[in-house]
Parts: sequence; C-alpha cells; structure tokens
Amino acid sequence: MYSYEYPRPALTVDCVIFGLDKHTLKILLIQRAKEPFAGSWAFPGGFVDMDETTENAAKRELEEETGIQDMFLEQLYTFSKVDRDPRGRVVSVAYYALVKMQDYKISAADDAQDARWFAVDQLPPLAFDHQDIFSVAMERLRGKLRYQPIGFELLPEKFTLSQIQDLYEAVLGKKLDKRNFRKKILSMNLLVDLQERQKGVAHRSAKLYQFDRNNYLALQEKGFVFEI
Amino acid sequence: MYSYEYPRPALTVDCVIFGLDKHTLKILLIQRAKEPFAGSWAFPGGFVDMDETTENAAKRELEEETGIQDMFLEQLYTFSKVDRDPRGRVVSVAYYALVKMQDYKISAADDAQDARWFAVDQLPPLAFDHQDIFSVAMERLRGKLRYQPIGFELLPEKFTLSQIQDLYEAVLGKKLDKRNFRKKILSMNLLVDLQERQKGVAHRSAKLYQFDRNNYLALQEKGFVFEI
Repeated sequence: MYSYEYPRPALTVDCVIFGLDKHTLKILLIQRAKEPFAGSWAFPGGFVDMDETTENAAKRELEEETGIQDMFLEQLYTFSKVDRDPRGRVVSVAYYALVKMQDYKISAADDAQDARWFAVDQLPPLAFDHQDIFSVAMERLRGKLRYQPIGFELLPEKFTLSQIQDLYEAVLGKKLDKRNFRKKILSMNLLVDLQERQKGVAHRSAKLYQFDRNNYLALQEKGFVFEI
Repeated sequence: MYSYEYPRPALTVDCVIFGLDKHTLKILLIQRAKEPFAGSWAFPGGFVDMDETTENAAKRELEEETGIQDMFLEQLYTFSKVDRDPRGRVVSVAYYALVKMQDYKISAADDAQDARWFAVDQLPPLAFDHQDIFSVAMERLRGKLRYQPIGFELLPEKFTLSQIQDLYEAVLGKKLDKRNFRKKILSMNLLVDLQERQKGVAHRSAKLYQFDRNNYLALQEKGFVFEI
C-alpha cells in the first residue's frame, strides 16, 4: 500500500556468534549501554546505514561493539514481528558464524558496556526478541552439522577422534555413543589416519587424524546426512 | 551509526512462486504498471506496511497483484545491495513457494498490468536485482530437493515412477538416468507400490505408486541426500 515515501520500518542487523570453547558451545553477547533494555544482554547489532549492505552493517556493528574484525558471517533469517522493539517498528536481519572462541579477543565499546561469551545452556534473559533469534540460530547450526562437515576451522590441524566427538557433542548439546560416532565419522572418508599418536599425555595416548581436504570440500559441496 | 530516527532504507518483499506445469518448472511474474521499470517483468511484491510482518506483506502483495490467496511462503533471503533500486535505498526480503501451477487462477491487478507464468529457462529480462533473487531461489529449491522429499502436494495421489522422475527433472533442469533414478527413489521407502496399473493409456500401462505418508514426514524431518 505504501509507496517509496515514509513511513518505513527501521532496519537493524544482529549477529549470533557461536564460539567453541573446548567442550562447550558459547555465544557472544553484549550488555546494552542504552535504552531500551539498558543493562540487558543482547546480540551485537544496530541500525543499517544508508550506504552499506546488511552484511556490511553486521560486520561493522560486530566490530564497534566487540572489537571483532571482518568476521565471515552467513545470513540467518529476517525477524519482523510488529512489536519486537519498544521504540516502534524495527525489522532485523540476523547473521551468524561459528568460530573458535580462543581466536578472538573481545573488547566492549560503543553501544556495549560489556561483551562476554555465555554457554548456550546458561544464557541470561535476552533483550527484544533475541531469544527467538537464538532459537532459530541453534536450529540452523544443528541442521548444518547434519548435512555438512564441520571442524576444519575449529579443530587443531591434528586431532583425536575424541576431539571431533567433543565438537559434535558441544554443538548438539548431548552425549553421543562413542562406538557409533566413530564408525560413522570414519565411514565418511573425511579423516586421514596419520599413523601417529598424541604425545605427552598421562593417559593412554590416542591416534591422531587430520581432515582430508579434498574430501572435506567435496562433502561440503555434495552434502550428506549424519544421523544422530 | 544511525539511531532509531531517519534516514532509513525502505523495506519491500518479493515472492518467487515456482509452479510445476507437468514437465516444466515455471515462475510467476508480473508486468509492472508503474515506474521504475514500468512494462518490465518482476516478482510480485511491494512495500511493507507498518503493521504487518514481512511474511504477511508478501502474502498481501501476492494477492493484490496476482489474485493468489493465502499461499504458504518460506523466507528465502534478504537482498540489500545499495544500488538495487533506482528510487534510492530499498532492502527486500524475498519469499518462495513451489506449487502445482494448475491449482491457481492468476489475475493481474493493483501495481501489475499483467501476471503470467514463464518457464525458468525462458525468462524475460527482470527488473531491479530480480535476476539475483531468481538465482538464489533456484539454488535453494534444488538444494531442498537433495535433502528432503518433494512431490506430496505436486503429484496426483496415485502416480507413476515416470511422473515423479519428471518432477525431479523439471526442478533440476536436466534429464536423469531412468534406471538409477528408480533404484534410488525406491530404496528410500518413500513410495508404496499400489499393485495397480494406469488405465486408459495407449502405450504399455505403468505401475501406480503413492507416497507412504509416515515415511514421507519422517524423511522430511530427518533429511537424506539424494545424489544426482
């Protein structure tokens, strides 16, 4: 009904950054410095400028509020419930990423008075509809795990089967049967047995693997179903 | 940088409706009645009102411009290139659906001077960045076909293996090997052999199948990879 003229909804972006901290899946939240929801925790984000794409807005806001530079973000979903922001009509385009937590140094600034990682099962109450955004992001991440290999950027170059199982368990939020998991992951021809064992561990040392880069990329392209 | 105040990008929605016309995959386009791109073909869509979600805006615009009521739409992607609209900054949330073309009667109205189905390999030049939107939609639809069963709403209740192969070929835009296709589709326990044959056909009559509803729903949930 409206033409190009006003009124218009305001447009924001939000960033759901999943960080893997060994056995725990975390997300990065900022504590809002300003109203509405001053003092509450929320995803890093903010208003889209007139001269930037939503993706660039997401990267800019992430950097302004947390210090993280130039992260690769994937578009998640656009949230548009009419009452999702007490200031009035605001539609938000959400982005997400999964990274190794230790690779990033966080420093709150701009609209954020604090920025911290929270375990996904120990989140504080979130501002706006960010609980909905979180749910959609978790679902997408778990869906991705079922259809594509993950771990290339998350695990060390050489890793044990326990480490890759920890990764899957952290994302899925549940324990997996060790024998079944190993059988499945090895049957995918994704891993190369390095014929080496861990060094300097107290317990019985485990075999080391690395990803077969070509098969990893082929599986990423082709997809599979990892039945869990 | 901006606060909740102006300036703001304008916000629109676009609808990519895929229609299956026997052996051909088509999309529904409208011919624009107004500038910009008056006379050009584009996806049905328009500006989001202040009191509706983007999903409801998409349904409303689809009905206003093509007469199609209350279609189930899935969110596709949000397009935000800075120069995508000559009027100024416009961000568009795209939705999509796959339907049986014959189920819908199309009648152009409102901002559309005409509305028609076009075969996906015979599209006219599209307005705005709608060629980009089309590409993303095709990719999503083909991806879906690889991971989920389709056809429940598209095929007649009883159908032949040729009919389901036609559906896959129409979406994929290529011929599939008949023997391989049959082997794969039958191995999924998705189809029930009705122990019946087509009636009233001139050539040798083919066996009839229907979907196993429970297995269909389970596969939809669980996913699979249909290697093509």
